[in-house]
Amino acid sequence: MPEFRKDPVLGRWVIIATERGKRPTDFEAPSEQSRGGFCPFCYGNEDKTPPEVMAYREAGSKPNGPGWWLRVVPNKFPALRVEGELDRRGEGMYDRMNGLGAHEVIIETPDHEGRWGWYTDRQVQEILWAYRDRILELSKDKRFCYFMLFKNKGKEAGASLDHPHTQLIAIPTVPKRVREEIKGGKAYYDFRERCVFCDMIAEEISSGSRVVMENRGFISFAPFASRFPFETWILPKRHETHFERIDRDDIVDLAPILKGTLRMLQECLNNPPYNFIIHTTPCNEGALPHYHWHIEIMPKLTKVAGFEWGTGFYINPTPPEDAAEFLRNLREGNVEDLSTRRASSA
Amino acid sequence: MPEFRKDPVLGRWVIIATERGKRPTDFEAPSEQSRGGFCPFCYGNEDKTPPEVMAYREAGSKPNGPGWWLRVVPNKFPALRVEGELDRRGEGMYDRMNGLGAHEVIIETPDHEGRWGWYTDRQVQEILWAYRDRILELSKDKRFCYFMLFKNKGKEAGASLDHPHTQLIAIPTVPKRVREEIKGGKAYYDFRERCVFCDMIAEEISSGSRVVMENRGFISFAPFASRFPFETWILPKRHETHFERIDRDDIVDLAPILKGTLRMLQECLNNPPYNFIIHTTPCNEGALPHYHWHIEIMPKLTKVAGFEWGTGFYINPTPPEDAAEFLRNLREGNVEDLSTRRASSA
Repeated sequence: MPEFRKDPVLGRWVIIATERGKRPTDFEAPSEQSRGGFCPFCYGNEDKTPPEVMAYREAGSKPNGPGWWLRVVPNKFPALRVEGELDRRGEGMYDRMNGLGAHEVIIETPDHEGRWGWYTDRQVQEILWAYRDRILELSKDKRFCYFMLFKNKGKEAGASLDHPHTQLIAIPTVPKRVREEIKGGKAYYDFRERCVFCDMIAEEISSGSRVVMENRGFISFAPFASRFPFETWILPKRHETHFERIDRDDIVDLAPILKGTLRMLQECLNNPPYNFIIHTTPCNEGALPHYHWHIEIMPKLTKVAGFEWGTGFYINPTPPEDAAEFLRNLREGNVEDLSTRRASSA
Repeated sequence: MPEFRKDPVLGRWVIIATERGKRPTDFEAPSEQSRGGFCPFCYGNEDKTPPEVMAYREAGSKPNGPGWWLRVVPNKFPALRVEGELDRRGEGMYDRMNGLGAHEVIIETPDHEGRWGWYTDRQVQEILWAYRDRILELSKDKRFCYFMLFKNKGKEAGASLDHPHTQLIAIPTVPKRVREEIKGGKAYYDFRERCVFCDMIAEEISSGSRVVMENRGFISFAPFASRFPFETWILPKRHETHFERIDRDDIVDLAPILKGTLRMLQECLNNPPYNFIIHTTPCNEGALPHYHWHIEIMPKLTKVAGFEWGTGFYINPTPPEDAAEFLRNLREGNVEDLSTRRASSA
């Protein structure tokens, strides 16, 4: 069983795979990308994944067979195991607990070549519904208090399979970064009696220079203290704490902003590797006045990462104002022609 | 001038290059590695770097000419500028200040092909003296309160030049990660009245399973909650807070541990890309009872990084006990034969 271990200085929990640890030679092996043409997530290969836990499929079609447009399956190589209890215990001065958690994969589309920038609004809505449905389902399990939805796109961003997919991890502890965000939000709230994210939205709309897209319900912008070139955040304009509480109207509003922003990044940066992560409130917290769910998109353009990991000290070579302008120019210019461009390149 | 910008939620300062920001096409350019054979750090090319600020060189040899075995030069493309004042100011709800700081490069050796695992003990000592000398010199400038020494080795670890070098950044603010470590150490000290790092050293020596090397003054081990495969930390066994206060005896003890550990990683993992970072106490703090300087070495073996940056949630596929055992086996087995191996491969 994998286990959680706590750093005694920082209080950060780390997942350690104790079962079959990677040996030195495993890291020298050729990249998983080169495993050849077979893709377990493609249409027709439904029996090559663990049995699906949910799917959106044609009426009458059978689970784990064709007829689907979105499938959710357990990760075949999960970082965590869903069985058992936490069993918190010490080892000398250290703390550990069982690596309890769920690790699922949302297969976004049957199309191996699919990209967010090319999805229809309807496809994006379906993916968002799937995110919500899985969190709501997993949150029935009272052992879990946090749900992390994240996408690794491209090898450089950590994806081991090319087929478009998102991962969902359910864990019994709140990640340090999320705790810090909530604490930071609380400190701001205590001082101003306003949500720092709501203030940021107002500030961004008023200054305008970092805004990428905006509609009735959502806004995307390059944050003032962006860590990475073209880092972009998406927030609901109304104060909302839990991603999984989005309703139909929210999904209709979020879809074009998420898709549009990713499309701009895709076009502006030549289909870059990227991560996006949904930051949401732990499910055992109520509607906090000081935290606001949001999506952080981080294109992986630079290699200067190892140092940044280690120090939390980031150096960003592209000002967010410039990044937002590049993206906005694309929108105003030729984004609308992209369907044509895609057709001609296909 | 570059600027520091503060994230309003997390309180993290980020450096934004505002002068000539990287444009989208800059990221598509071929890697800097492919710039051809010329290396500005090589012997004989002294006029291709900014003028040296320090060098260890033969008596009678002239600055910025041959005759050196170690040179320190300002970074030609500094992340920070040494001129001016901080000029803290607001912009709407946000905080910014001038990107004031020093950014130097320690050219460790004239040998382009040099590696830590191959250096003599004497060479390593010289490099450590240079680290110390530069911090002591820069700490005369009262605008700076933190000194960050870090090495990016290999393109995957963020190095843009192959020639062996270390970077030193002097900044007017303490990085968030360091503040958190000090705070974590303080919390532990308040509870137990002992240094958490001193306790860790005792625990590691007593359990033994994660120890890599040890001598009179220093120990290297794979930390209990390692974030990355083969992550290794080096600590002085005596409680010491400031790296720059090391003396001759410390340097004599540290050299074989640092070199030996990097040599094991080099041999075990086929000369991997890695970062090492010296974590030390801010120079405006006294000898804190709850913080302990140390070196964190992070081989860059996995690509699953983007997600980890974004969440602080790490998944490590190699248990530290296994990593330490692989490294120790190498030491007991054939590390002593490496000089032969090198000679035969040359």
